[in-house]
Amino acid sequence: MAAMERPSRRFRPVSGNVLPRFAGIPTFMRLPHVNLEDAADDIDIALFGIPWDGGTTNRPGARHGPRQMRDLSTLMRNVHHVSGLQPFELANCADIGDTPVNPIDLEDTLARVERFVGEIHAKNITTLAAGGDHLVSLPILRAIGGDDVGMVHFDAHTDTWDRYFGESRYTHGTPFRRAIEEKLLDPKRIVQIGIRGGLYTPEDKEWGLAQGIRVIEIEEVFDLGVEGVVREARRVVGNGRVYVSFDVDALDPVYAPGTGTPEIGGMTTVQAQGMIRGLRGLDLVGADVVEVAPPFDPSGNTALVAVTMMFELLCLLAECHGRFSKKS
Amino acid sequence: MAAMERPSRRFRPVSGNVLPRFAGIPTFMRLPHVNLEDAADDIDIALFGIPWDGGTTNRPGARHGPRQMRDLSTLMRNVHHVSGLQPFELANCADIGDTPVNPIDLEDTLARVERFVGEIHAKNITTLAAGGDHLVSLPILRAIGGDDVGMVHFDAHTDTWDRYFGESRYTHGTPFRRAIEEKLLDPKRIVQIGIRGGLYTPEDKEWGLAQGIRVIEIEEVFDLGVEGVVREARRVVGNGRVYVSFDVDALDPVYAPGTGTPEIGGMTTVQAQGMIRGLRGLDLVGADVVEVAPPFDPSGNTALVAVTMMFELLCLLAECHGRFSKKS
Amino acid sequence: MAAMERPSRRFRPVSGNVLPRFAGIPTFMRLPHVNLEDAADDIDIALFGIPWDGGTTNRPGARHGPRQMRDLSTLMRNVHHVSGLQPFELANCADIGDTPVNPIDLEDTLARVERFVGEIHAKNITTLAAGGDHLVSLPILRAIGGDDVGMVHFDAHTDTWDRYFGESRYTHGTPFRRAIEEKLLDPKRIVQIGIRGGLYTPEDKEWGLAQGIRVIEIEEVFDLGVEGVVREARRVVGNGRVYVSFDVDALDPVYAPGTGTPEIGGMTTVQAQGMIRGLRGLDLVGADVVEVAPPFDPSGNTALVAVTMMFELLCLLAECHGRFSKKS
Amino acid sequence: MAAMERPSRRFRPVSGNVLPRFAGIPTFMRLPHVNLEDAADDIDIALFGIPWDGGTTNRPGARHGPRQMRDLSTLMRNVHHVSGLQPFELANCADIGDTPVNPIDLEDTLARVERFVGEIHAKNITTLAAGGDHLVSLPILRAIGGDDVGMVHFDAHTDTWDRYFGESRYTHGTPFRRAIEEKLLDPKRIVQIGIRGGLYTPEDKEWGLAQGIRVIEIEEVFDLGVEGVVREARRVVGNGRVYVSFDVDALDPVYAPGTGTPEIGGMTTVQAQGMIRGLRGLDLVGADVVEVAPPFDPSGNTALVAVTMMFELLCLLAECHGRFSKKS
Amino acid sequence: MAAMERPSRRFRPVSGNVLPRFAGIPTFMRLPHVNLEDAADDIDIALFGIPWDGGTTNRPGARHGPRQMRDLSTLMRNVHHVSGLQPFELANCADIGDTPVNPIDLEDTLARVERFVGEIHAKNITTLAAGGDHLVSLPILRAIGGDDVGMVHFDAHTDTWDRYFGESRYTHGTPFRRAIEEKLLDPKRIVQIGIRGGLYTPEDKEWGLAQGIRVIEIEEVFDLGVEGVVREARRVVGNGRVYVSFDVDALDPVYAPGTGTPEIGGMTTVQAQGMIRGLRGLDLVGADVVEVAPPFDPSGNTALVAVTMMFELLCLLAECHGRFSKKS
Amino acid sequence: MAAMERPSRRFRPVSGNVLPRFAGIPTFMRLPHVNLEDAADDIDIALFGIPWDGGTTNRPGARHGPRQMRDLSTLMRNVHHVSGLQPFELANCADIGDTPVNPIDLEDTLARVERFVGEIHAKNITTLAAGGDHLVSLPILRAIGGDDVGMVHFDAHTDTWDRYFGESRYTHGTPFRRAIEEKLLDPKRIVQIGIRGGLYTPEDKEWGLAQGIRVIEIEEVFDLGVEGVVREARRVVGNGRVYVSFDVDALDPVYAPGTGTPEIGGMTTVQAQGMIRGLRGLDLVGADVVEVAPPFDPSGNTALVAVTMMFELLCLLAECHGRFSKKS
Repeated sequence: MAAMERPSRRFRPVSGNVLPRFAGIPTFMRLPHVNLEDAADDIDIALFGIPWDGGTTNRPGARHGPRQMRDLSTLMRNVHHVSGLQPFELANCADIGDTPVNPIDLEDTLARVERFVGEIHAKNITTLAAGGDHLVSLPILRAIGGDDVGMVHFDAHTDTWDRYFGESRYTHGTPFRRAIEEKLLDPKRIVQIGIRGGLYTPEDKEWGLAQGIRVIEIEEVFDLGVEGVVREARRVVGNGRVYVSFDVDALDPVYAPGTGTPEIGGMTTVQAQGMIRGLRGLDLVGADVVEVAPPFDPSGNTALVAVTMMFELLCLLAECHGRFSKKS
Repeated sequence: MAAMERPSRRFRPVSGNVLPRFAGIPTFMRLPHVNLEDAADDIDIALFGIPWDGGTTNRPGARHGPRQMRDLSTLMRNVHHVSGLQPFELANCADIGDTPVNPIDLEDTLARVERFVGEIHAKNITTLAAGGDHLVSLPILRAIGGDDVGMVHFDAHTDTWDRYFGESRYTHGTPFRRAIEEKLLDPKRIVQIGIRGGLYTPEDKEWGLAQGIRVIEIEEVFDLGVEGVVREARRVVGNGRVYVSFDVDALDPVYAPGTGTPEIGGMTTVQAQGMIRGLRGLDLVGADVVEVAPPFDPSGNTALVAVTMMFELLCLLAECHGRFSKKS
Repeated sequence: MAAMERPSRRFRPVSGNVLPRFAGIPTFMRLPHVNLEDAADDIDIALFGIPWDGGTTNRPGARHGPRQMRDLSTLMRNVHHVSGLQPFELANCADIGDTPVNPIDLEDTLARVERFVGEIHAKNITTLAAGGDHLVSLPILRAIGGDDVGMVHFDAHTDTWDRYFGESRYTHGTPFRRAIEEKLLDPKRIVQIGIRGGLYTPEDKEWGLAQGIRVIEIEEVFDLGVEGVVREARRVVGNGRVYVSFDVDALDPVYAPGTGTPEIGGMTTVQAQGMIRGLRGLDLVGADVVEVAPPFDPSGNTALVAVTMMFELLCLLAECHGRFSKKS
Repeated sequence: MAAMERPSRRFRPVSGNVLPRFAGIPTFMRLPHVNLEDAADDIDIALFGIPWDGGTTNRPGARHGPRQMRDLSTLMRNVHHVSGLQPFELANCADIGDTPVNPIDLEDTLARVERFVGEIHAKNITTLAAGGDHLVSLPILRAIGGDDVGMVHFDAHTDTWDRYFGESRYTHGTPFRRAIEEKLLDPKRIVQIGIRGGLYTPEDKEWGLAQGIRVIEIEEVFDLGVEGVVREARRVVGNGRVYVSFDVDALDPVYAPGTGTPEIGGMTTVQAQGMIRGLRGLDLVGADVVEVAPPFDPSGNTALVAVTMMFELLCLLAECHGRFSKKS
Repeated sequence: MAAMERPSRRFRPVSGNVLPRFAGIPTFMRLPHVNLEDAADDIDIALFGIPWDGGTTNRPGARHGPRQMRDLSTLMRNVHHVSGLQPFELANCADIGDTPVNPIDLEDTLARVERFVGEIHAKNITTLAAGGDHLVSLPILRAIGGDDVGMVHFDAHTDTWDRYFGESRYTHGTPFRRAIEEKLLDPKRIVQIGIRGGLYTPEDKEWGLAQGIRVIEIEEVFDLGVEGVVREARRVVGNGRVYVSFDVDALDPVYAPGTGTPEIGGMTTVQAQGMIRGLRGLDLVGADVVEVAPPFDPSGNTALVAVTMMFELLCLLAECHGRFSKKS
Repeated sequence: MAAMERPSRRFRPVSGNVLPRFAGIPTFMRLPHVNLEDAADDIDIALFGIPWDGGTTNRPGARHGPRQMRDLSTLMRNVHHVSGLQPFELANCADIGDTPVNPIDLEDTLARVERFVGEIHAKNITTLAAGGDHLVSLPILRAIGGDDVGMVHFDAHTDTWDRYFGESRYTHGTPFRRAIEEKLLDPKRIVQIGIRGGLYTPEDKEWGLAQGIRVIEIEEVFDLGVEGVVREARRVVGNGRVYVSFDVDALDPVYAPGTGTPEIGGMTTVQAQGMIRGLRGLDLVGADVVEVAPPFDPSGNTALVAVTMMFELLCLLAECHGRFSKKS
């Protein structure tokens, strides 16, 4: 009986052997573009963009991120060359377009994104989002987070600042402070990887550490090595539900120049891929890859890096979907 | 009864007041992306790409043209500011994706494109194509041309060369020689506008003139002015069926640097827009805008120019559609 | 006696024959950078930036405009080659830095800019502002406008839209609707030059025309020629106080690709320079040059064009200052 | 008998129908690269580069000009499309490489270039040089100039300044002052076309005018039109020997962004081509195209414009060569 | 006596102390450009380009590779800083230009390249080729390969796919499958280094492994380290004849963004240099460096990396030449 | 008494929480711009630019370095995230503008820079300079060096060549040979880190080694690791006075493409940061960061890397200032 209710439609990427990878309308991973309303019963994992940068305090442009990421994502293929995972066989994946946003109204946008993601979540669909600046993680977590959710957070910055210009509580530097305050994340099960760069004040680090966040600064990343970081990250997040947020500025700017707040001295893509692969088997509730700002990298290399990280994450989410059988 | 069989679906661009213009999956003019099979009965004008540059003898990259043109086309709006024409009200327009192509097989590609366009044409749908290099006009004309079809051809080059490297009969320098030989165009009703640049031999111009083509070299364009060129072009093509082919290298390279064979000293976009507007009322059977090579203009300005020309042409095609009532 | 109260400090650009033009900290036109508080009594014309793009509905980046414009402004010299005007001899000009802004709070920014410009205005100093997106003209006009102020407005867009996304009243597409509603401009003494590009609806043009604004669309600009446009603009604004607002998208995108909403088919820099020169002798209360978005033109050519327009305007403002003798 | 001893070797460009234009080692116009010593008796017109920018007071990079110009020159063809002139049939043209230069020693370089050009001139070969900054015209004129030589000079700047930094007499702003002082040019037979941009002091224009130079500022260029400028230029230079110096900054920066001292509001390539064509029939002793600075235009469009101007000039030089029969 | 007839001409790079490195016509390593026919008896190692990308299934542009590589190769010097090898002293090296190609005919090009390389090989000259896309290795191997030839192959991809689009047997993804089928390589003596990236199907790896190819995926490269990879590579290729093929996409895209099929997570240039140096002493029959696509990296950094790899390889080839004394 | 109340003025960066980091006139680290004459008594560490590239033998553009470095330096913050050092609390730092230079006179420039730095040094102010090409280190050392000064020198090149073009003794390849000859450095206390790239002749390395310079070529850097290099560097320079000179070409070109003489295979920013941090506690007399050539990296990433190295160095200089209490 369950079988009869299962997907009537099976979504798979358009093959590069039928339509060349540079051809066709670019969707994430060359998956079908479907409307959430029409296809909700069929989708296991929804890929979508959040084209917004209203929380950006320095270089804007992340609103253009999803489009460039879709373009470059057409270079992705079907089988992970190390794990052998085949995400499009393990789960029914689709591109459901972009969330609604309001480019000139921050609070309106937070509400729109939360509502959109909430609808996905209500249908038991796993989310894989492409930013947008890092503030977009907040409405996602408002929709799918909770105090039982841990987080593996790749970033140059902790994004746990409090205020900006005295008054502003919502910027791309504050999402996780707000998320912790709102009980959308369990701070003791948060690990932040790759943190670096000058501080405004010596106290910048204190609040997060006081909440129990485990911060692995970039120097410790290099000391521990990929395996050591993975071990520590898995220890911190444990067995419960986990969200993964990947800010491309975790990477050294040579890999991701197209971003809002570059910090030199970051990790390599090889290290980042190794760390994501090391998260295999965790109970992942969703993920995002954020802060791709195309105007600062028209070559598209930053977006290529970002969508490869999306593919790495998708492999894990798809396997996780099978194992935890969200739909049946 | 006819009315009942008429389009059940009405296609209109996504409004920029609902989804910002930089958001969403980029289709031509933000129109719905539909499959030809599903929607043939509903469509009046089909927009599609031909992502191919296998006929290019110098700088390749036009295979990437349609995707960048779709991206930039999201800046287009609904109403022509001079004529007041509203193409999306006058005709049911849709993006039907890209034609099949084979990036490493020239003859196979010519066959695939011809077949694809033939199917559109068989359903009485007007075609507006985005190249691709200029050789793509040949399979289009094989599908929709005939010895009763004239052509308004904007270009720096006549594209009526015979052979290349001794043997090769199909390059982006030969489509209109082949088309005339194959009786897909009436040479006496062809006008070529903007021709310029050094010649290989003094005889380069002879064949076309001998066929009766009216060549308006760029110097004559400047002498006649926009109105004079329009008058002459209308005189040449007369009242019969007319195809419009717009090679972006007709424009000066400052307007269209992203192209395969730039020639300095070309026309301005203002002049080109004026000339296209002057074609209003002709019996247009289709049009193309070709030779956008994004790797040579990552800024997208060339593509913006090209899609604005597509919008100019779409206004004419849509009005023409209404007047000649292809579907009823 | 007047002499005794006159400026003790005389501000002049650093000579390129002492410090090469590529050297030194870049201020507008290589003028001294002074604090308004310290130097208010000495300054006749204040140049400043408004580094903000919170009103931008499409491509952001104008917040980076003032810095790139300062950089390129170091290429400016002292004497206008046609009029012979020497702005730095006619008036005491200085760079007073950037206005306060809040990159993530629109209303807060409008208030900060208005207050800053208000202080300048209160000291009888003429303002020449570098944007920033076009919404920055609104707080400037709130500080210095009035129903006796006309405007010469160079732009591709009327910027008199009403709302965006249903609710948003303040975007870079609405400043002059708000300004007219708030009686900061006399609509019957507004002339808009260079308007073009597709419309959202056929009604887009109506509101402005109903207020009495004189719109010279780009086609009419080409028909009238520079002299004709100047004659008409002077007729419209008459003898009273006039503000000049120059949006770089009035120019064709080949001259100003680094902008938020490019529209092809615009005016040339030669035409724009001719029109500005034609405004000589008007009673100018201030001016701005806006919508330079450096991420879309890292070459700096857009900024070079913009600062040359600032120099053209400065010549007029400086002469005007002398004639109307605001300080004595 | 002398005829029998005439060129045993005939130099022609490699055909694009044998080796594609993007292939092969790039020489000017795809001509053979020969050593002056070996081939002096065979050459009528020598094309060479002067890779040097030691006279540049602002943005350097013109030392890289000749190489990029050679690269783009491979797009040139054989027959002028308007005049029908075939320069490679009219004269034996060759690429003789670059002059010696010393990148860190100005005076040494002036001597090296003068000696190199002097050797060419001694063999009765016409020179067509690719700069390099504009100071390179001085050693060329020292080799081939004289008080019977007039000049048609396209430029945004008069390049007749006296000193820089108090002491420096040789910069790219001074070559023609030095040339006149050294009696290498007859100032009364010099016409400068396209001059514009702010002045350092009101006196900047005086020295040149006092010498009798005819300065056609850009505004007058637009007033006179191409034909009027040509008429005036021919009147000024008369029937005697004439040198042509083309600084790419004569053009508007949209056509030639890759240059050291861009000035907006310049001429178009169409206008420049028209003016060069109008010089047909003059007794030309040589020409140069200078100030291409590739680091400021990696796209190569500036170089493409520059080499097309070289081709335009080469047509005139080749015809002139035939008519004035320098070799026999 | 034979010795006396040996090279009358000794080819050495033009010194940077005589002609600056940015000056002069760019040949590979600033070596003399000679015709094969004229100089065959003098040449030990021939450097040449194969300006062709007709086998490219994604981003074209490698046809422009040789020219940009020549340009950047002028930065190379004479002595290897680690090994002390002086290739230009050990062997007579020259730039013999580009092979013939036909940009629009794949099979014709394969034949032209094979013939050209065959002529070189017939004269006992070692070949060092600059691509072009990777399909160019096939005609090279047809000229110089055999079932006694092993290969060290640096690449992100195995390039042993079978067909493309059902029918096409020759693309840049198939050269080594064809070469093995044609007995141009001994698969058991092939080592592929750096393989990575998503697979189309789980079976992608099987064919090559079944032939006995040793594939060292990038993860194993990082595990083994440079020394370990070198040891394994030498074990695989043994003492017989060996060809080296270096695809720049073996490198991480930050080092080589200008390529057709970038894959993130690749090796560094330091690792690649170390591995090439580790091949010293092998019996090398030739080498190529391929897949440089300049339109995707106008900065030239990719080409700089590629030509430095050519210099590394040239040191080995030159030493090998001396040791195996091909000419005597 | 006034003397006892030393610094009446305290210089601190403008806070990013008051003026966004992209706003305002860009000074080094957002410090106040002061005149040396006015503020000499208040300043402990002077940051300044040397906008000059007259010693450059290949790709020019370093004259534009200081301006782009100031722009990017606005991204720096206050507290070092590893050491916790707060340079702006430890020392009174200010931007004193650029040194005088003469872009077309090498010797004049050397004199101007020496005089300017000499004045700073005479006032017991520590210098942190931003180049400019590497020749600028020579006049700095003439002002502050001596035979008791050692040097830690990061570079791809030893810069101890003797002559260029036979005669020229001053280029960016010779500063440290001249400095040693002039007894401005103790060669036995010089360590050069990161040296690599082809040599002109096998003797290139000899002179420096004969003087006793310790050269750590890049291969040894990788072998020793950061800690090993630091240990060796500290051993070499010992306890005496030390200058630090950081040429950005020490880094791999992916981190610093905007430079005059790129050499692939360099160190990472992470390694460089580690090595600079390892110099903590040395008796530092000054430092420079040189060879940033913006025309070759308009993205600004090279400048971002360079100014982050300046911040790393400033932390050490400021601590050193406190410890050695130069002012009291």
